[in-house]
Amino acid sequence: MNTAIIATGSELLAGLVKDSNSKFLAENLRELGFTVTGIYLSSDKKEDIIRTIKFASENAELIFITGGLGPTEDDLSRDALAEALDRELIYSEEIARSLKDFFARHDYKMTENNFRQAYLPKDAKIIKNNNGTAPALKIFDNQTRFYLLPGVPREMVAIFNNSIKKELEKLSKNKIIYREYNFIGIGESTLEDKFNQIKIDSQIEKSYQATKGEVKLRLKVLLSDSMDREKTETMLDNAEQKLVKHLGEYLYSKDDKDILEIFVEKIKNSRLTIASAESFTGGLFAKRLSDKAGSSQFFKGSIVAYTKEAKINLLNLDPQIIKKYGMISKECVTAMAKNTAEIFKSDIAIAFSGVAGPGSMEDKMPGTMHIAIKYNDEIKTIELNKNYGRSLNRYYATQIAFFETIKLLK
Amino acid sequence: MNTAIIATGSELLAGLVKDSNSKFLAENLRELGFTVTGIYLSSDKKEDIIRTIKFASENAELIFITGGLGPTEDDLSRDALAEALDRELIYSEEIARSLKDFFARHDYKMTENNFRQAYLPKDAKIIKNNNGTAPALKIFDNQTRFYLLPGVPREMVAIFNNSIKKELEKLSKNKIIYREYNFIGIGESTLEDKFNQIKIDSQIEKSYQATKGEVKLRLKVLLSDSMDREKTETMLDNAEQKLVKHLGEYLYSKDDKDILEIFVEKIKNSRLTIASAESFTGGLFAKRLSDKAGSSQFFKGSIVAYTKEAKINLLNLDPQIIKKYGMISKECVTAMAKNTAEIFKSDIAIAFSGVAGPGSMEDKMPGTMHIAIKYNDEIKTIELNKNYGRSLNRYYATQIAFFETIKLLK
Repeated sequence: MNTAIIATGSELLAGLVKDSNSKFLAENLRELGFTVTGIYLSSDKKEDIIRTIKFASENAELIFITGGLGPTEDDLSRDALAEALDRELIYSEEIARSLKDFFARHDYKMTENNFRQAYLPKDAKIIKNNNGTAPALKIFDNQTRFYLLPGVPREMVAIFNNSIKKELEKLSKNKIIYREYNFIGIGESTLEDKFNQIKIDSQIEKSYQATKGEVKLRLKVLLSDSMDREKTETMLDNAEQKLVKHLGEYLYSKDDKDILEIFVEKIKNSRLTIASAESFTGGLFAKRLSDKAGSSQFFKGSIVAYTKEAKINLLNLDPQIIKKYGMISKECVTAMAKNTAEIFKSDIAIAFSGVAGPGSMEDKMPGTMHIAIKYNDEIKTIELNKNYGRSLNRYYATQIAFFETIKLLK
Repeated sequence: MNTAIIATGSELLAGLVKDSNSKFLAENLRELGFTVTGIYLSSDKKEDIIRTIKFASENAELIFITGGLGPTEDDLSRDALAEALDRELIYSEEIARSLKDFFARHDYKMTENNFRQAYLPKDAKIIKNNNGTAPALKIFDNQTRFYLLPGVPREMVAIFNNSIKKELEKLSKNKIIYREYNFIGIGESTLEDKFNQIKIDSQIEKSYQATKGEVKLRLKVLLSDSMDREKTETMLDNAEQKLVKHLGEYLYSKDDKDILEIFVEKIKNSRLTIASAESFTGGLFAKRLSDKAGSSQFFKGSIVAYTKEAKINLLNLDPQIIKKYGMISKECVTAMAKNTAEIFKSDIAIAFSGVAGPGSMEDKMPGTMHIAIKYNDEIKTIELNKNYGRSLNRYYATQIAFFETIKLLK
């Protein structure tokens, strides 16, 4: 089915803001088996949006419009679509009520403008937005199906994933079977190289994608009418077996789960508690853990000791260790982890010390990173020596800490 | 002058590659005073490109087309433009010669396909590409001016900067003057509402954009021939004065700077040191500070005390305070900030305690957040009571902490 994406927003045409929504939709639509025939960025102006809708409709039966659903006067996607389809705008009591609820719940003052969001083209269906005030809308018009989505990426993505994806799966005729595998601790080209040496069925397409300290491998088979679903799954099972056998030590997920999710699940099930001591990660480990609702069940806290004095005073670190081995050393993180477990009375303690960069420290290169994980009277240490730049170094160290702790809890 | 940008490439529509060219062009064209009326991503197919060219031509007199100038069979931008403008494709001896030169110089083998690049629409002018084989082309057709540029960003950018920018500067009649203002602590619709009550010159266009816990206001004046640059600046100065007078308490930047940048600059200049105590922010404050290279100059560390015990043991919090006022209270954060300054011997200490959500705590609603800032023997406290969801609550609290500390350091 031919599909078009329209992103509205004058800030996009001014080059001030990146249009990440269209790329997200394009990627997902492709994976669902749709053909995107065009991506069109339009200004906020009603006439421009109408022109673009009409143009997109010429050769697409499924059209996504993002942005322009807010409460201000330059939010005109609702109006434009109504006019393009020659429909009235109707005041929805249902939306008005949920807007009033939202504002009351958040103790915000509601202005007259906010009620603009309660108008929708006649016969439009409302799709709930749990992250903002602008509901998404769905409209069927003759052969064409329109989705109007908010422009805030977080809201748009949540609505797409939770409410639209399933509908589209039913709609799609070309089924594609995917399997996804996530790796940590191995580079994209090394992974590709190693996997290419393993023989798998030639109908399986492989693609690699490197993201922040991880590599995702996607296996894909296009399921045509002549192909048996069961046989295809078996073919993929075989490939997976080989993958696990040869590259299993780097594999942490078979269903594109976030490593943090896996970590949190594991630690919740184990009923263990955790604390951390952070030098170069500067609170990032604690921040990531506490991002998760419910983390207070197992997370006791973290001491971010950014100076030598803080390490000595707060982490009770023996100055002799620092003198002898330096702060960026296996010995130092080992003592940090040991003391942290005592200070917080936690079952697991993880300590980080290293050089985030860009500069060197203690004559050690950026990317020199030490991690210690204390669990069950044993302390596992890891040394990393690759420089990915300040931000990714810090992030990568926390990824490795999650990955190695998961292995210990197995 | 109305301008349109067409990016060709099926990989763009599959969401596999980011279209960075269009954003680059849009940004530069805006700064040169052109109005971009649309950005259109087309597939590689000739018919799609032709359709898109015709649509773009409807309301733009300056059209950029990127991609599809390579030597392979799916490089069809030249053919599409020729057909859209009803012109023949002519073999150019000049291009053929320079292609042969290029291949000889680089000791590459030339294939028959490479000569496809020597064909160009009749009367097209050649713009040299110093970084690749595909020359850019320029075509005037009645009132419309087309630029065909290679899709490789490095080549496109070099050609634009070296050969096209100057031509466009001469062509541009309308210069646009922008001013940008960033606000914290006020919602988009409230800001719009309040600003609409202030009378400013009607030639000033306003636009609003809400991002993570902030609102950006952009004032824009189109400087036509009949308008005096100096007068326009004065007009904007007047608007700015009113803005500062009425909404100054929420304004943190007049040049679109990040609040963290401003904070770090301020604290570096002040030569003060800082430490923090974090409950519901869980290390986010420390993480954001330590994101910045060089933060060890002023940042001593943070105690992330996620449990009551950690607050008592690590922050020396008087259990009586917790008993009497609860952990989520002005009194608690005040004591946390005071003790943190002592523990770290820092000039500034910032403490956070609150309910991140989604659940309640101590019978307090999610979004109930207390911040205390100790500086110079005084402790400033802030209470927030708006629920934006767990992630944004935490982020917003750190934004407010940066903002309020900047005010204290003034």
